[in-house]
Amino acid sequence: MAADRKVYGSLKSPATLKVLAILFELDLPFEFITVDLDAGDHKKKAFLSMSPFGEVPVYEDGGMIYFESRAVIRCTAHQYGNKGEALISWDARKQAMLSNWVDVEDHHFEPPALKLIAELGIKQNKGLAPDEGAVAEAEAELARVLDVYEARLEKFKYLGSDMYSIVDLLHLPNLQSLLGTPAKKLIMSRPRVSAWCSEILARPAWAKVLDMQMKAQVHSAF
Amino acid sequence: MAADRKVYGSLKSPATLKVLAILFELDLPFEFITVDLDAGDHKKKAFLSMSPFGEVPVYEDGGMIYFESRAVIRCTAHQYGNKGEALISWDARKQAMLSNWVDVEDHHFEPPALKLIAELGIKQNKGLAPDEGAVAEAEAELARVLDVYEARLEKFKYLGSDMYSIVDLLHLPNLQSLLGTPAKKLIMSRPRVSAWCSEILARPAWAKVLDMQMKAQVHSAF
Repeated sequence: MAADRKVYGSLKSPATLKVLAILFELDLPFEFITVDLDAGDHKKKAFLSMSPFGEVPVYEDGGMIYFESRAVIRCTAHQYGNKGEALISWDARKQAMLSNWVDVEDHHFEPPALKLIAELGIKQNKGLAPDEGAVAEAEAELARVLDVYEARLEKFKYLGSDMYSIVDLLHLPNLQSLLGTPAKKLIMSRPRVSAWCSEILARPAWAKVLDMQMKAQVHSAF
Repeated sequence: MAADRKVYGSLKSPATLKVLAILFELDLPFEFITVDLDAGDHKKKAFLSMSPFGEVPVYEDGGMIYFESRAVIRCTAHQYGNKGEALISWDARKQAMLSNWVDVEDHHFEPPALKLIAELGIKQNKGLAPDEGAVAEAEAELARVLDVYEARLEKFKYLGSDMYSIVDLLHLPNLQSLLGTPAKKLIMSRPRVSAWCSEILARPAWAKVLDMQMKAQVHSAF
């Protein structure tokens, strides 16, 4: 029965893809309802009644509605994960450390990543020239973040701990998109970041997300 | 014994004040070490070894170091709170809803709030003129967020649920600062937001934070 769990989103939206990745990781059946961002469906009244800031995805589970992707991922891992085995920890201190790195993805990694994907991917695809100043600034910012990651991956197998966790999972869509832009060099030039990136992008759950994109003929975020 | 728990931060930093508020809420003793932001101490090597992005606060508990304030608050509430009683929930669905609204504070409330505090508070205090365009944009953004809050507070006593929780606590420093600027009107013109604001700012734990500021002769964030 998939009907209890619904994702309203877009296969072009990184936040939507993150939520799909956790559902596939945990083998949770769900119904996917496409929200047409190009048609502005996320800004229409019906959608705003679920997501007051007009953002995708919206996640419905057992009649409750959530509209912040990291909250959905964090709590789905807690609710349905095998206790303490993977994705998130039940130990308060270990969980604090994972939470710390979830917030790093949110506050430090994603902003320059999205900027570079917009400038070097989305604009490029529309035949528009990127804003060189914005690209240089975002590249410098992302390089600084990836230096921190390279040092972290010297101490731990994954970014949050020695286990694959929601911290790594949250990076998947933007890493995938960055690899399709010239900013790929920032990843490839750092051996530990590069190996981590290859490994997490090879997760079977992520392959299922890419498969959904392929079937819907969405080839990337741009 | 306060030595086990340390906060390295600044009494001018909203993120630091949020962490202090949760420690006072839970009656947890701690040692406070001032990081002189004006002297750039947060960008020096010793500090960067704890906080790789050079941001305050850093929180140390039992030898572990965390540098993202929301992660500290979320996990401290879990580790030391009375199970299920207040501040955070142990029920996965209720926790998901609180997490959802923690992320709303992070992604929607804080950015325009900080912008307005910078333009109307910090600049004003230095005798500089605010950027009127930036003020208008941030006011419109904050108004939209507070409209969502007003509707939410029609259904629940507090922002996250019917109990005071970390969702409300996270708003304290920026609400306090906004009340000292002309943006106060955005709060006062919404009856439920205004009542909520008065009630949460009257928490004894928050009074202790303000008392720390007063003793250190820090009168506000600006």
